[in-house]
Amino acid sequence: MKLLLVGANGTLGQAVANEMKTDAEIISAGRTNADVEVDITSTDSIQAMFETVGEVDALVCTAGAAHFGPVEDMTPEQNLVAVNSKLLGQINLVLLGLDYIRENGSITLITGILMDDPIVKASSSAMANGGVRAFVKSAAIELPKNIRINNVSPTMVIESEEKYGPLFKGFKPREAKDVGLAFKKSILGAQSGQTYEVY
Amino acid sequence: MKLLLVGANGTLGQAVANEMKTDAEIISAGRTNADVEVDITSTDSIQAMFETVGEVDALVCTAGAAHFGPVEDMTPEQNLVAVNSKLLGQINLVLLGLDYIRENGSITLITGILMDDPIVKASSSAMANGGVRAFVKSAAIELPKNIRINNVSPTMVIESEEKYGPLFKGFKPREAKDVGLAFKKSILGAQSGQTYEVY
Repeated sequence: MKLLLVGANGTLGQAVANEMKTDAEIISAGRTNADVEVDITSTDSIQAMFETVGEVDALVCTAGAAHFGPVEDMTPEQNLVAVNSKLLGQINLVLLGLDYIRENGSITLITGILMDDPIVKASSSAMANGGVRAFVKSAAIELPKNIRINNVSPTMVIESEEKYGPLFKGFKPREAKDVGLAFKKSILGAQSGQTYEVY
Repeated sequence: MKLLLVGANGTLGQAVANEMKTDAEIISAGRTNADVEVDITSTDSIQAMFETVGEVDALVCTAGAAHFGPVEDMTPEQNLVAVNSKLLGQINLVLLGLDYIRENGSITLITGILMDDPIVKASSSAMANGGVRAFVKSAAIELPKNIRINNVSPTMVIESEEKYGPLFKGFKPREAKDVGLAFKKSILGAQSGQTYEVY
């Protein structure tokens, strides 16, 4: 099977690649240093990526940016970072990618614990996560070609603890490998419309 | 108390006004025929509305549009209807409105059952609902001035059954009055970060 992995260079992208490398031919995608370069905030860039890669069996996204800051100080423009990247970047991968995903294929997007277990300064990220989760649940009942769609919602991973630990005080970190396994379950399983929480 | 009601002319806006008319001075807002005109897809229009209205104790929104159509055919541009209206229109009411909401005030936004109980052709609406719900849950833990924020998630109401019944086959419709009561609970209660489901 052919797997297009958007966000391949990130900690979670690498974890997905590790779990899937014996099951799939992986095409890495990302802003730099990937088999195909893509900026998910641009529909033209997404379209060009699919035209370059052609048909795939599995589409995975582990990418998505968001502004972090107090909701009291957040501007509508700052909120657009998450809208254009983690929310619409991922949904546009679906809308523009359906033609390139084969019969019985799958799509797995990324959300995150902040939609369920909020911390301060993360409302914009929570918004994007909640939007993607609800889109996935709804799209799952009507995707063509028997294509499945799920999302994986990780907590902070141990590998990112130095960077994000101060934000996630009291949260139990999980191994990136566990998040990779959740993606594997989505890709190789038979469920659709699910949110796989790795909390 | 002073209540700014965005979407006042709609079925649900009227239901909120009916429930709140003895408890609050209501300032109606909407695209037309309102005390103050506002287009929630425009941050300039939202800003102008708050400058006209001044300080309020409660901000309520029952407005928000979305494109309905099969996810297979939906374009990124069609998806932007819900992004700019039901999702960002409402979130920008919060981001731009916080300065105008008094100490111990409240904000109540609208979501909808489609994020939990999907139907075909409604993925874009589900996305907006899920995004607003997660934003509300997250913003609630850090809003200034002891301001509370909740969302009301209605199913189809009896008053809209002729228009929306064909989409909501098998769904039990509820009275608009029950949705109005849920808004009243949010405005006059003490909870925050809640999703009041009227399913």
